[in-house]
Amino acid sequence: MAAKDYLAEERRNPAFDLHAMTNLIYGGPEKAEKWKELSRLVAADPVFRKDDKYHLSRPEAFKRALEKVKQAYKRVHELGLDAADSRLFRVLVDELQGSDLHHGMFIPTIEGQGTEEQKAKWLPLANSYAILGCYAQTEMGHGSNVQGLETTADYDITTQEFVINSPTLTSTKWWPGGLGKFSTHAVVFARLRTKGADHGVHPFIVQLRSLDDHRSLPGITVGDIGTKFGLGAYFTVDNGLLRLDHVRVPRDQLLMRYAKVSPDGTYSKPPHAKLAYGAMVYVRAGIVEGAGHYLAKAVTIATRYNAVRRQFGGKVGLETQIIEYKTQQHRLFPLLASAYAFTFTGKWMRKLYTEVIDQLNRGDVSGLPEVHASTAGLKALTTSFTADGIEECRKLCGGNGYLMASGLPDLYCAYVPACTYEGDNYILFLQVARYLMKVASQLANGEKPSGAAQYLGDAQRLCSVQCPAKSAADFLRPEVQLEALSARAARLVIGNGMRIQGAKNFEKAIADSAVEMVRMSRAHCQQIVVSKFIEQVQGDIEGRGVRDQLVLLCNLYAVSQIEANLGDLLEVGYLKPKQASWVHEALAELLIQVRPQAVNLVDAFSFSNHYLGSALGRYDGDVYTDLYARAWKEPLNSTDVVDGYTEHLRPLIKQQVWPVHSRL
Amino acid sequence: MAAKDYLAEERRNPAFDLHAMTNLIYGGPEKAEKWKELSRLVAADPVFRKDDKYHLSRPEAFKRALEKVKQAYKRVHELGLDAADSRLFRVLVDELQGSDLHHGMFIPTIEGQGTEEQKAKWLPLANSYAILGCYAQTEMGHGSNVQGLETTADYDITTQEFVINSPTLTSTKWWPGGLGKFSTHAVVFARLRTKGADHGVHPFIVQLRSLDDHRSLPGITVGDIGTKFGLGAYFTVDNGLLRLDHVRVPRDQLLMRYAKVSPDGTYSKPPHAKLAYGAMVYVRAGIVEGAGHYLAKAVTIATRYNAVRRQFGGKVGLETQIIEYKTQQHRLFPLLASAYAFTFTGKWMRKLYTEVIDQLNRGDVSGLPEVHASTAGLKALTTSFTADGIEECRKLCGGNGYLMASGLPDLYCAYVPACTYEGDNYILFLQVARYLMKVASQLANGEKPSGAAQYLGDAQRLCSVQCPAKSAADFLRPEVQLEALSARAARLVIGNGMRIQGAKNFEKAIADSAVEMVRMSRAHCQQIVVSKFIEQVQGDIEGRGVRDQLVLLCNLYAVSQIEANLGDLLEVGYLKPKQASWVHEALAELLIQVRPQAVNLVDAFSFSNHYLGSALGRYDGDVYTDLYARAWKEPLNSTDVVDGYTEHLRPLIKQQVWPVHSRL
Ligand SMILES: Cc1cc2nc3c(=O)[nH]c(=O)nc-3n(C[C@H](O)[C@H](O)[C@H](O)COP(=O)(O)OP(=O)(O)OC[C@H]3O[C@@H](n4cnc5c(N)ncnc54)[C@H](O)[C@@H]3O)c2cc1C
Ligand SMILES: Cc1cc2nc3c(=O)[nH]c(=O)nc-3n(C[C@H](O)[C@H](O)[C@H](O)COP(=O)(O)OP(=O)(O)OC[C@H]3O[C@@H](n4cnc5c(N)ncnc54)[C@H](O)[C@@H]3O)c2cc1C
Ligand SMILES: [Ca+2]
Repeated sequence: MAAKDYLAEERRNPAFDLHAMTNLIYGGPEKAEKWKELSRLVAADPVFRKDDKYHLSRPEAFKRALEKVKQAYKRVHELGLDAADSRLFRVLVDELQGSDLHHGMFIPTIEGQGTEEQKAKWLPLANSYAILGCYAQTEMGHGSNVQGLETTADYDITTQEFVINSPTLTSTKWWPGGLGKFSTHAVVFARLRTKGADHGVHPFIVQLRSLDDHRSLPGITVGDIGTKFGLGAYFTVDNGLLRLDHVRVPRDQLLMRYAKVSPDGTYSKPPHAKLAYGAMVYVRAGIVEGAGHYLAKAVTIATRYNAVRRQFGGKVGLETQIIEYKTQQHRLFPLLASAYAFTFTGKWMRKLYTEVIDQLNRGDVSGLPEVHASTAGLKALTTSFTADGIEECRKLCGGNGYLMASGLPDLYCAYVPACTYEGDNYILFLQVARYLMKVASQLANGEKPSGAAQYLGDAQRLCSVQCPAKSAADFLRPEVQLEALSARAARLVIGNGMRIQGAKNFEKAIADSAVEMVRMSRAHCQQIVVSKFIEQVQGDIEGRGVRDQLVLLCNLYAVSQIEANLGDLLEVGYLKPKQASWVHEALAELLIQVRPQAVNLVDAFSFSNHYLGSALGRYDGDVYTDLYARAWKEPLNSTDVVDGYTEHLRPLIKQQVWPVHSRL
Repeated sequence: MAAKDYLAEERRNPAFDLHAMTNLIYGGPEKAEKWKELSRLVAADPVFRKDDKYHLSRPEAFKRALEKVKQAYKRVHELGLDAADSRLFRVLVDELQGSDLHHGMFIPTIEGQGTEEQKAKWLPLANSYAILGCYAQTEMGHGSNVQGLETTADYDITTQEFVINSPTLTSTKWWPGGLGKFSTHAVVFARLRTKGADHGVHPFIVQLRSLDDHRSLPGITVGDIGTKFGLGAYFTVDNGLLRLDHVRVPRDQLLMRYAKVSPDGTYSKPPHAKLAYGAMVYVRAGIVEGAGHYLAKAVTIATRYNAVRRQFGGKVGLETQIIEYKTQQHRLFPLLASAYAFTFTGKWMRKLYTEVIDQLNRGDVSGLPEVHASTAGLKALTTSFTADGIEECRKLCGGNGYLMASGLPDLYCAYVPACTYEGDNYILFLQVARYLMKVASQLANGEKPSGAAQYLGDAQRLCSVQCPAKSAADFLRPEVQLEALSARAARLVIGNGMRIQGAKNFEKAIADSAVEMVRMSRAHCQQIVVSKFIEQVQGDIEGRGVRDQLVLLCNLYAVSQIEANLGDLLEVGYLKPKQASWVHEALAELLIQVRPQAVNLVDAFSFSNHYLGSALGRYDGDVYTDLYARAWKEPLNSTDVVDGYTEHLRPLIKQQVWPVHSRL
């Protein structure tokens, strides 16, 4: 840490116990300590350097990433980290890699869909990196519509093998992370056909490359699909393409925990269609927690820089900190509040996951549609919001945000595909809509919705009541906030329900009003985030001043969401125009209250300089020295006169390309 | 062009004369022909290849860009192109370069601020590329606040020179495009000091590099500031840093058209503070026209891909085109309409520029504050909207939009800094706000506002009237649309005016309600775009069906803006909730009407495949073949087994990094 702390003034009077807040964020003092300790270890290890990240070509970056995979594996074992901590370690290494898909998709798929035998065979190999795997579902012609996949797996009873084949260009597997160069194996999704019947899409373990020399096996055409958005970011992930030319795999490489094919080719269906929900809740809880985390990274960078940067209104060095400007606050602080909100939503979802698993184990699938809908919706809500929020943080830093050295462009490019993978967000909102339309029709029959949709049980009242707020201050009351967001969602649900009611073709009716459906689903999900944040803030919270800050952030989140959706609230007739103006007032007041603690509130996330990778987000705020030093490391600066001058610029300047005194 | 046109069906029945539309877009048949002819010439020239763009390192890309600068210069002269056509040529080369700043900032600054003598000396040198220049204003510590620049220029009466100096780290010039490696000269902005008095910031021509060998001159420290957002995009622009250590320039290198320093050091002020407005209107007209153009590029790519891409609801190959989905239409078609709207706003601004120059020449500066405000605001409105719109187009293409091969990430990264340079958009909106607050106070005195603010003369009525719409169809009437947007803007102006009224400190009052001020300025600018679009659509328009399509697009633009701002319209009490639901209905109907002509409407922009640089936006729609072919050109695919395998992956797979059967 440098001698001078340019943010010392901001840190002078923390209104709360930062350690306690950090503990809360990371789930207890041990976990928080672990986070900090591993942060230091990763930062200190030269293999994990990031300083030249934006100067490497893709092949150079890819090679470096492989070195990091190796080093991470080694360090994780040397340190004896358990599964959770080794995940933290890899998060801190902060490089997207094929190994993410190995751990995040390949292994979990085997765990979730493999029989005990299959797990006993494959998991030790995968866990020890003796094989490396990926998740190959999407095809060139088939993304959102998984049921439309073209790859086929025909059962050959004579050899007891599946013959896996990509018949067309559009059946080429296209996008799977880690597929192109990294993986030796893949879970390939293909249409299972036995005895002339097509049983739809199923997962098969397919070996792609030799374990001796990593060369692709006969019948396998595999490669990388090319560069993606950003400099760095996804350089190090080999999203791949794969064509299979009648590749044979043994029968027991169909993952058979649920659906089975017997040696004689008899197919047996999975006992229940909803069995996949458990895994989905797990993955989506991770994404929602991640949203809070990555948004916090961006907000940390923007907040620190906004407190250091000065512009207008004073002598040099004494100008106004740009964090004082109301427009900056109005754009930035709701993002800070959202980072906290999503962190807490993530915690709630993780708890939900345990409950889901419990229910599944008890054979109870009744609550699953609701859980599925709210987690799908929250994935969509939080990833879209976070992607936009990261980009807004970048803009909040003016020109310097546009430098890679700010760390923000990279964060955006690495994060934004979360809006697309694990379900395109619009598709997910439309799934939520289908669920909400069922709820609407059940309400008519007097049935009570469960879980996060419970508030809809009160729909009748919510559809007729008026906002009781009589002043700006009233909007700081949680019950007022919650009723507003609930009334909005309920009215949209009931309105859409009436529109759909009695439609002959349910799917078509949903499709025709898809725009309204998405609006409704978003409203439902915003209600969930606010209600869960409020619940958790009202629970057990330790440490001096921590609850006060969280109450403030929770108010800020709720009121900023209400402001952002005033159109809906007025349109559905719940709010009156006069009340809308109080919402603005309430928000303005909250921004003033958050301002003094803004830097402390981002510090509580405890991100190391290495992890942030940002000249603007440095802990000590010494941004100009850092920007200047980084500039000189730019390869273009390796010579005073740039390569190309002699061939191309000199002839121009020396007027050798076209006679002087041209007519231009 | 490939044999098969996958979009033939979409093109079968154009409801309008595409040629006539193209002529309208480019400003007449000759200009449209020129555009097409130059498009072909650039596409056919191997020097202008773009196919390996995303595989070059920055130094490689930079060198290539210099070659393109040379070739463009040569071709422009060989073809005998005039200034306007040579600009088109460089646009079509489609690479950001130092030469953009040379043409776009360096030369215009000399033209605008130089005396006749200075112009006679410097312009021929600059026009023939005997010198290359840039515009060096921003410093590390001073961006938006130009008056705070620290670089000093002290007049030395003994030698009749200015001594230019960067006293501190924060006074380092930081960001100027073309400064780092390309330019031999710069217009440097520095505080002019003579006889002990500081006269504020003035422009000086400073030589940076030797014209013999391009080495930086004594006293000059110059270099590149490092990589920026995106792979490619700004690789080829050397945004630079510059420190000046008591660098001496002759007195006549102060650009002295307005402010002057005589040999004895006597300073004379410019006759009028508003003289810079002419140049600003010119630059901003260019930016607004550019917004329509770049948005059209993104919309072309997304529209074509959305018509080719099929997902759900049918057998392979016969699934539904994703352009049929209502959510896609609701996101995409308003962007299409906006591309047209901004194109027309740009045309209006260009006409305005001629009028401004006329007025200035007549010594009439009365209308300038209004012109300044509306052009500043339109720059802010259109660039923010376009940047967001490009990114939305990318998301509309699902996963494949995330590939560089889609062309969309590059378009975004190259475009988005337009929100920051030539005035950060928030700062510009706050300038507009200051102007509108003056209008509000003048209204109280019975003065009538001029130009684009004229509608505010009707503020009293606009503040009391109710929206007359009695059905969805009523929202298709231009007078209804215009009144809605005018009423919204007027009410915000009057509301803010009352809030500010009588405030002791005008600046502070604006700063305290900056959030409301920005909301108001945006509303004002949206009113302008809609009113200018309506005006132009009602003017002379040639060609079968062209006007009908423009009326449709104008309706779509206006109604989508009304929908996006229902919150304001309801909050200010102009609309009733029931009317809001008609707005949704009206919009839904317009989307249906635009759908059949969507591909034709993007085709009318006449972008070549080379210019679009997109596998998804190809004219013939053969996207999968193209994506697949591009993938195989990825450098990572040059070998089956990736570089790094032997060193890093093999030891893992062979279990040499850590004993097998780890505890994990
Ligand atoms: C970085 C990244 C990593 C990935 N990793 C993997 C991986 O490891 N394994 C894997 O198998 N795949 C992976 N994918 C692929 C990913 O799962 C798909 O991109 C995703 O499912 C979306 O499908 P798509 O790209 O085909 O989009 P499409 O389905 O083509 O969607 C395009 C657009 O159409 C809209 N649309 C489509 N259908 C409808 C409808 N019925 N109603 C309304 N709108 C509709 C969508 O909302 C979207 O806006 C990855 C993708 C990315 C970008
Ligand atoms: C690609 C690119 C090319 C460029 N090219 C050139 C060039 O050729 N020549 C040149 O001289 N410069 C150039 N610039 C610099 C550019 O002009 C500045 O980035 C721009 O003026 C904004 O200044 P800043 O970056 O210092 O932002 P800042 O002024 O630091 O602004 C940061 C944030 O603070 C906010 N803010 C600041 N003041 C206020 C206020 N009073 N009220 C409310 N909010 C406020 C802004 O809205 C913004 O969100 C370039 C920049 C970029 C990104
Ligand atoms: Ca290289």
